[in-house]
Amino acid sequence: MSDAPARLVVQPLSAEAFAAFGEVIAPSSARRAYPINSGTAQRFDDLARIDVAAEGGHPTLGIVRAQPRALPFDVRMLERHPLGSQAWIPLAGARYLVVVARDPSSPPVAFLAARGEGVNYARGTWHHPLIALDAEADFLVIDRAGPGDNCDEVALPQVWHVTDIP
Amino acid sequence: MSDAPARLVVQPLSAEAFAAFGEVIAPSSARRAYPINSGTAQRFDDLARIDVAAEGGHPTLGIVRAQPRALPFDVRMLERHPLGSQAWIPLAGARYLVVVARDPSSPPVAFLAARGEGVNYARGTWHHPLIALDAEADFLVIDRAGPGDNCDEVALPQVWHVTDIP
Repeated sequence: MSDAPARLVVQPLSAEAFAAFGEVIAPSSARRAYPINSGTAQRFDDLARIDVAAEGGHPTLGIVRAQPRALPFDVRMLERHPLGSQAWIPLAGARYLVVVARDPSSPPVAFLAARGEGVNYARGTWHHPLIALDAEADFLVIDRAGPGDNCDEVALPQVWHVTDIP
Repeated sequence: MSDAPARLVVQPLSAEAFAAFGEVIAPSSARRAYPINSGTAQRFDDLARIDVAAEGGHPTLGIVRAQPRALPFDVRMLERHPLGSQAWIPLAGARYLVVVARDPSSPPVAFLAARGEGVNYARGTWHHPLIALDAEADFLVIDRAGPGDNCDEVALPQVWHVTDIP
């Protein structure tokens, strides 16, 4: 453990790189696509595993209006939702940072979502709360409502310093 | 019954006017709102009743890329999903028409969604397939996957003619 901040390098978001943490919500990562509505539209389907039924839970839908965070940004804590997945989708293509970790003692991984992609954190995935960039932005959130304590927070043993984005 | 088309007047979308058919998905129609993420964001919550658990169903997430439809537009049919709700949220604020009816023999009601709002059709609500306007646009869809036949279609006894929007 060290109190000296380490630099956290930000990488572009991709379905492959994010696969250990959940799904990227974008047409390009669809498991299947097919025409609907007499061919006037295309549906990209099965974009995320909405996993919210544990212990009597059910899906809930919210909109989060986020203030932008400034760089450099220090990652000092993570949280996880042990009872359910949580999906975030920008409603006007806003850029944001996604910071996840296998566990609080592993180095976190940072991604830049820059093309309107959403992410779905798999149930129990350690992640940093939303880091919006640039301007106030609205995000759709699909997660779990129901009984039980569905948020664990942990202070990291090391501060991680995001200085710039690709 | 008549083969002569009747004019279908389009009204602005509002939570109150849409309440008999489902929910309008927008911060302004939230049942509750509260700060999150150390006050850097506001969550508008409980925006829609995701009702997809009937007969072993579960929520699924898709993106629909829709071609725009031209006016005048003829409403000739409706559909409903007897086993689940279906939510549509434009991903870049696109305008679209929402056409719903209490039942196929009642006059349909048409709304213009023009401020980035989504709609959630309550389970079993008769509605027309997506009518995008203006340009190709992506919509997030949250509906039901699972066993059973979840789509009924009906041809209307009367054609309804949408000639212009407010």
